[in-house]
Order: sequence, then C-alpha cells, then structure tokens
Amino acid sequence: MAERSFKNFEDIEGFESTDSNRSTAPLKYAQTITIDQPLELELGGHLSGVTVVYETYGELNSARDNAILICHALSGDSHVASHDEQDDQGWWEIAVGPGKVVDTDKYFVICPNLLGGCRGTTGPNSDNPATGRPYGRDFPTVTVADMTEVQRRLVEHLGIDKLLAVIGGSMGGHLALHWGAVHSDMTCGAIVAASSARLSSQALAFDVVGRNAILLDPNFCDGQYYDEGCGPNVGLAMARMLGHITYLSREAMSDKFESDRNHPRELSTEFEKKFSVGSYLAYQGQKFVERFDANSYISLSMAMDLFDPGSVDGGLTEAFRPSRCRWLIMSFSSDWLFPPDQSQDVVDALLATDKSVTYCNVTTKCGHDAFLMEPDLPQYGELIRAFLDNLDGEVVRTVPGGSIEAIAGGEGSRPDCGLIVELSEPGHSILDLGCGDGELLSLLKQRGHERLTGVELDEGAILSCVRRGLDVIHADLNDGLASFGDGQFDFVVLSQTLQAIKDVEGVLCNMMRVGRRCIVTFPNFAYRKLRQMLHEHGRAPEARGLLRYKWYNTPNIRFLTIADFEDYCKDRHISIHHRLMLDTEADVEVQDDPNLNADLAIFVISR
Amino acid sequence: MAERSFKNFEDIEGFESTDSNRSTAPLKYAQTITIDQPLELELGGHLSGVTVVYETYGELNSARDNAILICHALSGDSHVASHDEQDDQGWWEIAVGPGKVVDTDKYFVICPNLLGGCRGTTGPNSDNPATGRPYGRDFPTVTVADMTEVQRRLVEHLGIDKLLAVIGGSMGGHLALHWGAVHSDMTCGAIVAASSARLSSQALAFDVVGRNAILLDPNFCDGQYYDEGCGPNVGLAMARMLGHITYLSREAMSDKFESDRNHPRELSTEFEKKFSVGSYLAYQGQKFVERFDANSYISLSMAMDLFDPGSVDGGLTEAFRPSRCRWLIMSFSSDWLFPPDQSQDVVDALLATDKSVTYCNVTTKCGHDAFLMEPDLPQYGELIRAFLDNLDGEVVRTVPGGSIEAIAGGEGSRPDCGLIVELSEPGHSILDLGCGDGELLSLLKQRGHERLTGVELDEGAILSCVRRGLDVIHADLNDGLASFGDGQFDFVVLSQTLQAIKDVEGVLCNMMRVGRRCIVTFPNFAYRKLRQMLHEHGRAPEARGLLRYKWYNTPNIRFLTIADFEDYCKDRHISIHHRLMLDTEADVEVQDDPNLNADLAIFVISR
Repeated sequence: MAERSFKNFEDIEGFESTDSNRSTAPLKYAQTITIDQPLELELGGHLSGVTVVYETYGELNSARDNAILICHALSGDSHVASHDEQDDQGWWEIAVGPGKVVDTDKYFVICPNLLGGCRGTTGPNSDNPATGRPYGRDFPTVTVADMTEVQRRLVEHLGIDKLLAVIGGSMGGHLALHWGAVHSDMTCGAIVAASSARLSSQALAFDVVGRNAILLDPNFCDGQYYDEGCGPNVGLAMARMLGHITYLSREAMSDKFESDRNHPRELSTEFEKKFSVGSYLAYQGQKFVERFDANSYISLSMAMDLFDPGSVDGGLTEAFRPSRCRWLIMSFSSDWLFPPDQSQDVVDALLATDKSVTYCNVTTKCGHDAFLMEPDLPQYGELIRAFLDNLDGEVVRTVPGGSIEAIAGGEGSRPDCGLIVELSEPGHSILDLGCGDGELLSLLKQRGHERLTGVELDEGAILSCVRRGLDVIHADLNDGLASFGDGQFDFVVLSQTLQAIKDVEGVLCNMMRVGRRCIVTFPNFAYRKLRQMLHEHGRAPEARGLLRYKWYNTPNIRFLTIADFEDYCKDRHISIHHRLMLDTEADVEVQDDPNLNADLAIFVISR
Repeated sequence: MAERSFKNFEDIEGFESTDSNRSTAPLKYAQTITIDQPLELELGGHLSGVTVVYETYGELNSARDNAILICHALSGDSHVASHDEQDDQGWWEIAVGPGKVVDTDKYFVICPNLLGGCRGTTGPNSDNPATGRPYGRDFPTVTVADMTEVQRRLVEHLGIDKLLAVIGGSMGGHLALHWGAVHSDMTCGAIVAASSARLSSQALAFDVVGRNAILLDPNFCDGQYYDEGCGPNVGLAMARMLGHITYLSREAMSDKFESDRNHPRELSTEFEKKFSVGSYLAYQGQKFVERFDANSYISLSMAMDLFDPGSVDGGLTEAFRPSRCRWLIMSFSSDWLFPPDQSQDVVDALLATDKSVTYCNVTTKCGHDAFLMEPDLPQYGELIRAFLDNLDGEVVRTVPGGSIEAIAGGEGSRPDCGLIVELSEPGHSILDLGCGDGELLSLLKQRGHERLTGVELDEGAILSCVRRGLDVIHADLNDGLASFGDGQFDFVVLSQTLQAIKDVEGVLCNMMRVGRRCIVTFPNFAYRKLRQMLHEHGRAPEARGLLRYKWYNTPNIRFLTIADFEDYCKDRHISIHHRLMLDTEADVEVQDDPNLNADLAIFVISR
C-alpha cells in the first residue's frame, strides 16, 4: 500500500487559489465560549453544550447596532481576515478590514467557526462526553438550522439584540438565507453570494462522490482515525480536488492551465503528476489534508446537501414569507456550481411576498469562487458596501444633478416623471422597468414612496441604484417578468424603452399582468420632422435625444407611431386611461394632431 | 476494510443511461484477427503483434467502397448494434442497423474494439508475451495515433482500400479526427460528434481525479490485480461516477433526479445512498466494474488526455492541412465536457485551409451523451444520413420547386441570384451568409461551382443544405465571421439580411475582410409606398415580402435607404462596383431615382 501521509509540503508559485494562504497555525486571536444550554438538533439527537470559536474585528458601538455576522463556507473557519500585519491572511482578507467593503472601522464583525467544523467549534473531532474520545462518525447529523442556532446563541451571548447584517457565500449563503428567513427579527439585512436554496443534482452528485472517496478510504476506520497514524488523507484529498474543479469556471481553468498543460509543477506526490492541472489538484488536495478534518468535511457537506427550505408546503415562497429583513442576493455568471438561475429562484420567492430585495448577477469568468476573488470586487464588493451603508441609515438621499423639478422636466431626463408623480400616491407600489440609475425611483423615494422596485440590465446602473438605497432586480425585460405576480404593483413604468425591446408583445402583456396601471413612454416615429426626413430626403430619420443614432448603430429597433400604438391597444382591448403628448423640443404639451406634432408619447394603459 | 466486490447486481428501473444495456456476455458475433506485424508505438515501445476484435454489419459491395468504420468511445466496445433479435442491444443501437441513420442495408459497418481496450483487442488485460501474465501497468502507453494505426491495418486486412466514412463520438471523435487528418487517403468522409481537438483543462481534471481514484485504490496492486480476489473496484466505480456526472447536462440531471431527490432506489451498496442521484451513481459505478477493466480505463483515458493534434507548429490548421476528405462536425449545445467552442476550433482550422466541412451545433438539453440518445436523433442522425448519402454520390441535385430561372427571378425568392450567376464563374469561391436551405448555393452547384460554403443559424435549414450536398457552417452572423480568413472567398453574399442584423458594422467589415467582392441586398425603406405610409398615414411602413410584418413583431430592426447605404460606403471608403435597383412588385429594374422607386437594392462592394 502506498504511503498516505503528506509531509513537508511547501507552497508553489502559480498555484495560488482562494485557499492557498490558509494556515494550520493556531488562531491566535480566536475567542472561545462554551454555551452550556443543551442544543436539540433538527434531525434528532442533541448536544449537551456547544463550544464556539469565533473572531471579532472592529468595535461594537454603544447602541450595539453595528454588528455584522459573517458565515464561512465549507472549508472556511473563523479567520476571515488578519488582525494585524503579523497575522495570517484571512479567507476574505480582500473584503474585510479597515476601509474595506466590510469596513471594520465602522462595523463590529463576528466570524464564528461553524458547528460541525474542525477549527475549535464543537464538531466530529471534539471529545464526545459519553466516551471521552472524539465523536468521529458518532457526531450527530447537523443542519444549517442547527449551525444558525449556535450562531444566534453566540450573538445573544455578545449582548447584541439585532445584527446589522448577516453575510455568507456558497454554503455560508445557506446560513445567511436561513437567518433572513427564520431569524429576521435579529438582523436588518441578509447578504447572500454565490448560493442557492438547495444544491442542484449536479452539485449534489459531486458531494456524494467526494464523501464516498472519504468513507471508502481504507484509512477512514469508520471515522475513528484520530489515534491511527494516518487518516483518510487520500479520500479527503480526492474530495478536495473535485471541489476545486467545481469552484472554477471552465474558462478560468483554461486560462490557468492550458498554456503549460504538459508542464506540471515539481511536486512530491503519489497522485498523478503528468499534467499541469493534475499537479495543481494534487497540491490543493494535499494541502487541504494538512488543515482539515475528514469527518468535518462529511458533516458540513451533508448539512449543505440537506439544506432545502423550499421543501415545505408552498415552497420557497412560504419559507421566506415571515422574513422582515432587507435582502441582497448576488450570483456570478460563470458559477456552474451554484448557477445564477438558482439565485433567481430565491429572488422570485422573495419578490412573491413583496420583500425588499436587490439582485445582481455579476458578469465574471471566475466561476463560483468569484466572490472570494479580487477581479469582481469592484462590483460585488461595492454592492455589499452600498447595501450596508443603507442598512446603516446612510442613504444618499440627495439626487445628483439637481432638484426634483429639474429631473421631472429637464433635458435628457425622464419626461414621464411629472405624470407619475401626479398620478401616484406614496402608498402606491411602483415597478420601473429599465430603471437605469434609479432617477425616477429616487425622486419618488424623496417624495415618501416606499414600495419601489426597479428592473435593470446594466450592472453599473444597479450599483448606482443600491447606492441610492433602492431595491433593484437584475433582469433582461425580454426574458419576461416572471419574477412578479399578477397585479403586484399599482403602477408599472416602461419609460422610453419600448422602441428598444425585442419581445414587444411579451413585455407589454407581462406589464399589464403585473401592474394595475401601466405607464408607457416612447418616441413618436411619425413626428413631423421624422416624416419629412424620410419623405423629402429619403433617409432613415434621426433626431436629437433618443433618436440621435444612425441606422446601423441605433439601439432602437422598433419604429412605431402614436397611431400604431393606439391601433395596437384597440386590437387587443387594452384600455387607455390617460395620454400625454409632448413636443420635447418646444417643451410643450401637444393637443393638435399629436401623431404629427408630438415627438414623445406617454400612455397610461391597463388590460 | 469494507467488502469490495459487487455481485448479483440487478438492473433498476429509472436508472437507464446510455450505458445501462451493456452486457458482460461474450460477444458472440465478434470476429478476431491477429496482425503479426510489429507495431511501433508513437511514444516509444512496441507490440510484437496485435489481436483485434471487431464486429461487422451489412455486406461489403463488389466495388468495396461502401465500408464505414465506427470508433467507440472510452467505455465502448465492438458491439455497436445487435446482429439479430436475440442479440444484446449495442451501444449505438438507435443509429446503426437496417434503414437506420447508418443503414446496414446500404453500408458495410466495421466496429473494432480499440487498442488498449478490454473486450478482446490487445490491451492491459492481454497476456504479455515477455511474462506470460497480463500486462497490467506494463502495457505501454498507447495513443490515438496507435489505435488508429491498428484500425487502418484491420481495414487493409479486410481488403478495403478506401472507407466511405469514419464515424466517432467523444473519444471516438478523436480517432475520426486523426483518420481525417492523417489517413484521408483512406476515407472519403470523417464524421465527428461531441468531440474536440484536445480536452479542456476542466475535462482533463476530471480524468486525473478518476485515474487517481483507481491508482490509489489499495486493491490496484500496481496493476497486477488479475490474480487477486478483487481489483480496484471502488476506484474504478468512483471514476465511472465522475464520468456519469460529466456526461449529463445540469438540466438533464435536474430533470432526472430533483423530483425524487430524497428517495434513492433500493440498492445493495457500500456507497452512500442518501440521495436519488447518489444511488444512481453507485448503480452506474458498480455496474461498470462488472464489465470493464481498470487498467484499460487508465490506458484509454490517458490516450484521450494526450490527444492534441494542435500541439504542432502552426497548430490545428497545420495538423489538418494534408486532409483531403469531407468533414461533418457536430457539437451539442449543452455538452460541457466537450463544449461547442471546441468543435468550433476544429471547424475553424479546417476552414482556414479551405476544407470541405459542415458544422452543426445541435440544440439539446441532453449534454455530452446527446449523440448516443434518441431525443436529438432527428437532427444529428439525419445530418449523418444526409452526409453519408452525399459521400455515396446520391446527392439530390434537382432543385425543389422549379428551374434555375424560376429561382433567379421568382416571387419570394432571391433576386440576387441572377446577378451572382452573371458575375461569378465556376472557379470562383462563394460564401453565402444566411444561406437558408441552400437555394442560391444549390443553383450555383448545378451550374458547376465547386467552392461553395453557406453560413446559417437555423438547424432545420442546415439539414436541408446537407441534403443538397452543400457545405454549411452553423453560426450567428452577429458573432463575427472569425472562422474565415482574409480574402478567402471571391464573393461573399449577404442577401436580404442586412436589415435584420444587430451588429451591422461588424458584419459588413468582416464580409469585406473575407471576400474580394461582397454582394449586399436589402429592402429600401425610402421606397415611394413606404414613405407615403409614414408621411400620409402616420404609420410604421409595411409592405409585402420582407416588410410584411408589424412594428412589434418584425425581424427587421434596421431601416435603411439606398441613400443611407451609399452615404455609409462613401464615409468608409467602400468601393461600389455594381448596383442593381429593382421594383420587385413591377418586376423591373429601376433607373430613375431608385431611392424613391426601387424597393430592393443590390450592391457589389469591396474595401
């Protein structure tokens, strides 16, 4: 039998991963508490008491309302960031610290090792009081709910009634989801990155294979390997290798390994070392074995695999119904382990019961681990910062560029603002499709409206909205508005976007399904000057503003007139409640033959 | 240590896969030859002789020109189809047989077990003449080139000078690629499905983990497990489990397992059986162990991982330069193991040296195994049938619907045909962008043109083109024409498509890069009737033909006039060599003020 221990294992240049700076050294800033209260576990069994190891950063303020709980992922621990320059780097060093996204100059950050973990909190490598030996496989099955309950007790122990936010990515996102669904009386916000309401069958399958590799490793010894010379190191390393494959996108793996495919790093290993990617996996696998316990891997991955809040009657919508906190959900476009459509399912469930939720699918090629990496920090990190700022009450409530009046009537702005302000009352709910940087919604917010939601495709604009304290959902209007329920909003607004939409009929139909009243604004292609341009000059019409483009590069792909739109409404029995016809050049409302004299039309319609 | 043999293993309903009907029974129709000629191996070492087990179907005709070689994938064997009703089903039963896609009433089909395999052809479980015991790990490293050489000798042995086609999917596709690149003097066509010119780093990584599972299985015994009670069954089963995950798309896995996620099938197994997907993997893993040899798995997967024809100077383009056969390349949209972009790379390399190649990316949710499954057979299977028909000389050369003249001038057809026929000579190469079902190209083919290529997005239209014996590339024009080289074609044609293109500038720019002359046809938006419609009636113009749509559902998103296009050419220093202005309603050429009087413009341009 081959030698199964890995010693003297050194770091290798070029093999950095989100994991590569993890240390096996004692966590010198870690604090330990023991909570003697018995813990009844969700799936039966109980623990008579729980030891929790945690680290904190920053200071709890006198109001005790600036605390943020960070939940680590499968292989993480309490060491989310370094405490000083001599300290080891933490697993989310890039995001947590003074002045960083989770700013420890402002916030009091708590990061505990999870129940079932192996860095100090009670887990399978803790002594079983019944036997005086480590639990091993006798450690009871723990769930995300159990882990969260331990965190809740820690927070209470620290004298904090209500957290500002809970943040988690991947499996940590499961804990944040549970906090937001079940303990939202104890947190203002829940931030969930690269996670899902349950694993896909594909992700589950990888976990199953990883666990099998550990369980069938002959050195597993039914979990009681602690006193043996060696544990199930091969199996654990194999599980870790599989994990590493799933944490990267195919593109990221290509970038990392294809140029030197046949030049593996020099590595002392019994694993195959023919290919560069093979030596990387061997390296990551062997390194992991030095710092992680196989029984914990089984316990934590099983908790992740069992997480399924949507299995209740009524599904995810019912699971999230009691929630009272604000939500920020982020997925990553190339994450195939927790793919964006799974985050979308969570968002849909939250929207179904009118929760305050913002969603962004961050475009990245970094895959699942993107939320731990630098490249996309300017998007996901700043979204977190802005979201926290608003939970913190520091909402930027002034509208950049001028007053309400300037926005409602100004050049290059939204001429429908005035009408919407006129028609709607603060109690009305409003959905703004293609909300841009939140100009209209921000105006309405200033006027006291509270039930405001935007839909936007541009990620930069989404960040602007979050900075304004608005709820915004990342979506392409052409893909439908399936996230929203029938009659969910008093007003749905589609401002100067109809002419750029591919699926016009689908979008209009969905708008009228979702909104009791719909406000549609579009440029009138039959405006006098445009007609003349084609008729007299024989050229595709161009004008200022929305129509400033050339035929070959315009985003406007639908050329409709006021008469066309009225015909459309008539044919489909759509009621027109108001119409406002503007000559925006002359800045006047048009009464006389608007199809000839107005360059912009605003209709209020409903089915 | 746990019990490691799997006995009495029964089929389980609902767990069918492309593998589930494989038998361990002797291959009763298999034939065996021994080729005594020594085989010098690509990576060194040699075999003094090779035994080949193969099966044949159908009859070799008197001209000996109807033979098709089928190359199996990693876990396949010679039994591609059943020989009679009592016989076991083969691994591609759906596609091979009388009247099927590979019609054994017409063709003589040969399917040999690969060198390195374990179903009869020389491999690691064969006796090593030097020791009298099985080779085990002493079996030399064999490559795709070595396997192909053995096949070539078999074909020679059967008295066949030239195959009609070589067909292979996945790893079998590697062999078909090698045949087409290196032995194209011995085959008219190469058909490659769900394959690539080399594995992605991600796919490679899965193979590495699978091999590690076998190599580090304590029952591997350094490959000499044949006389032991049990081989590395756990490791081999784990490798197979991983394989099964990668053969299905995420969506297919969800469809298969998410409804009964927590209800695994009853299964006698030492593997984890908590989840439905887990019991499936355990089942597939255990079943595989009964019929496959672990050393063969290592040899064959390593051959696949080492396959990299593009590693030569000049890359894939040089590797394929000597090829003289016709190519059909098919990828599958949800195949993430051999993703479509890798097939596209092969296609690009073939196009770079003007090979005759057709490419289709079949839209499917079945993943990598789609090429072995029923659902997409109407597309990929019929492409194979049509491609073989044309190799066979049975090209449908009559143009459905009428004569050349009818096509060149008829209603609803392509008015540019006449001009193209007039301008081009049979020696000219022509690229037709958005070629539809091949109307123009088929006409030119009838006229004796040989260097014709179409680009088309619609899969049904691609099949029509292949039935007409045309070469067609599946692509979206908006994604660029990167597959084609500078000045590669005498004419590039864009017929009545400009008005529906998003990236107008990109497409025009690329056309002029690729073609020495470009022929662009588009509807004139300044045509008298259209001007009037907007000017007098204030409505978005509609007309017959291309402009028969409504503003909200038209595929036409660019409204340009003849004057606009001429301005565009002038601004960009594009030369206009010819222009033909038509009033298609009156069926006349327009000389007088075409921007007013022509409804269709044809320009011949170049940079």
